[in-house]
Amino acid sequence: MKLPAQVRIVEVGPRDGLQNERQPIAIADKLMLIRRLQDAGLRSIEVAAFVSPKWVPQMADAAAVLAGVLAESRPGVGYAVLVPNLRGLEAALAAGATEVAVFAAASERFSQRNINCSIAESLQRFKPVVERARQAQVRVRGYVSCAAGCPYEGEIAPAAVVAVASALAGMGCEEISLGDTTGVGNPASISRMLEAVMRHLPPQRLAGHYHDTYGMAAANVYASLQLGIATFDASVAGLGGCPYAPGAAGNVATEDLVWLLHGLGIATGLDLDRLVDTAAWISRLLGREPFSRVTRALRATPAGPR
Amino acid sequence: MKLPAQVRIVEVGPRDGLQNERQPIAIADKLMLIRRLQDAGLRSIEVAAFVSPKWVPQMADAAAVLAGVLAESRPGVGYAVLVPNLRGLEAALAAGATEVAVFAAASERFSQRNINCSIAESLQRFKPVVERARQAQVRVRGYVSCAAGCPYEGEIAPAAVVAVASALAGMGCEEISLGDTTGVGNPASISRMLEAVMRHLPPQRLAGHYHDTYGMAAANVYASLQLGIATFDASVAGLGGCPYAPGAAGNVATEDLVWLLHGLGIATGLDLDRLVDTAAWISRLLGREPFSRVTRALRATPAGPR
Repeated sequence: MKLPAQVRIVEVGPRDGLQNERQPIAIADKLMLIRRLQDAGLRSIEVAAFVSPKWVPQMADAAAVLAGVLAESRPGVGYAVLVPNLRGLEAALAAGATEVAVFAAASERFSQRNINCSIAESLQRFKPVVERARQAQVRVRGYVSCAAGCPYEGEIAPAAVVAVASALAGMGCEEISLGDTTGVGNPASISRMLEAVMRHLPPQRLAGHYHDTYGMAAANVYASLQLGIATFDASVAGLGGCPYAPGAAGNVATEDLVWLLHGLGIATGLDLDRLVDTAAWISRLLGREPFSRVTRALRATPAGPR
Repeated sequence: MKLPAQVRIVEVGPRDGLQNERQPIAIADKLMLIRRLQDAGLRSIEVAAFVSPKWVPQMADAAAVLAGVLAESRPGVGYAVLVPNLRGLEAALAAGATEVAVFAAASERFSQRNINCSIAESLQRFKPVVERARQAQVRVRGYVSCAAGCPYEGEIAPAAVVAVASALAGMGCEEISLGDTTGVGNPASISRMLEAVMRHLPPQRLAGHYHDTYGMAAANVYASLQLGIATFDASVAGLGGCPYAPGAAGNVATEDLVWLLHGLGIATGLDLDRLVDTAAWISRLLGREPFSRVTRALRATPAGPR
């Protein structure tokens, strides 16, 4: 079983991680977080969402955050922002965005509740967004949420994921991130889903976006690596607790993912110690324990293994 | 890749889980824990250790606990106790033990620090223990700790694990439990270790005993299943925080293991809801949050997925 020699990690902490935080976080702190993530070696970072502040108050400062990031942008780093529609895209482009992401779901009921429209309507809405972004030479990433299960519908058929992933890829999304939004996936269901999608799209265009709600993320990443997936989303400290399970873990923690990958002998270009320091710092700032097992263990035994 | 259709789980919570607890736990509570674990379907439970109360005060009541368990023993359930030497074995036999376990290490320095003798000396010490146990028709299980790394020596060569596992098997241990004592193993190092051991012993005689300190236990179990391992140790609620990393997780939680296995379509005979209830109960009794991700997530969303 040959695993990829190298993995690219897309850090989604500043966006997916922070968006559900109730306490407003200062722009300076957001910029510091993004700076520290780059210092740790991250080269793909989702920094904000150009969504309605009515729905996601934490992202109301998206334009200011993106401007701050771009003012000190570093060569070789991609900064992405989420855009829900044409209006969001125009705002993102006006703020200088060079990479955007759109967000669809593989579950009909989740789509209705999360973005207030059917899957088909959402794809219809994204079409001109992707077109316009590509005209502006902006890279587009497509998310498929509920790719391994839905909080309302339960199991999601791989065919439903295939349909949405193919549609997004067909309209011009260069990369498709397959999201186990509520963390209910396991190595078997994740593998079935990936195998179905890979009959239509090569693994180079896919990313695994796994939540660690039930502690399965590392196992799901391992199963995905065995199928050739070499891009994974993660969130420092495991920021982004699932809104459907308060107190439970959110995105897989970047440092847990790096611990796994380095243990498997896979290069990431990331500095684990800096990630752990950043995870501890942002968790302190948010007044909570890091969800990351690796950060908790390494902070408990600073002289422990690396 | 064919996974086993069925997995046997050895519950070690009442022994490995509780032994490091500082607060004395009442015998009635220990018996209640063991009762609830059987109600959840567990058929192999390590209930106590016949060790010096000077070293492990929590286990000073081993004879009383075993007597209590045997007084209400159920058909088809194996109750094991740990014995460090001949004296411990005699005490265990006097208390009616029908299954015992001995405990060696694959790391020389860990052996010295943990049981005060070299690996060779420990094996020498276990030989008459296993002999005497077998004379008494008592099943013997052998533990090999530090099978994937040592807190003092770092990496442990698979050959060192092979040597100890083979010696224990050779002297008559029916099952060898391979312990990643500090949770530093990952799917690659665990697989290398297992492959080395399986050149000498069939998977049917092996058990995986993985700690979740760095959140890798589920991935390590998945890798082990792929190699044909079908017995795993676990501890309800993840009891047994690693003494080398206070605040970090201990044994893989039984309910996390069951969540993974059931998700993979593997039968365990266990009732997840009862395990989660038991995990919540014992955690409350010990005054802490369960380490288990599954218990935390399911308790946060009682109507959530199963």
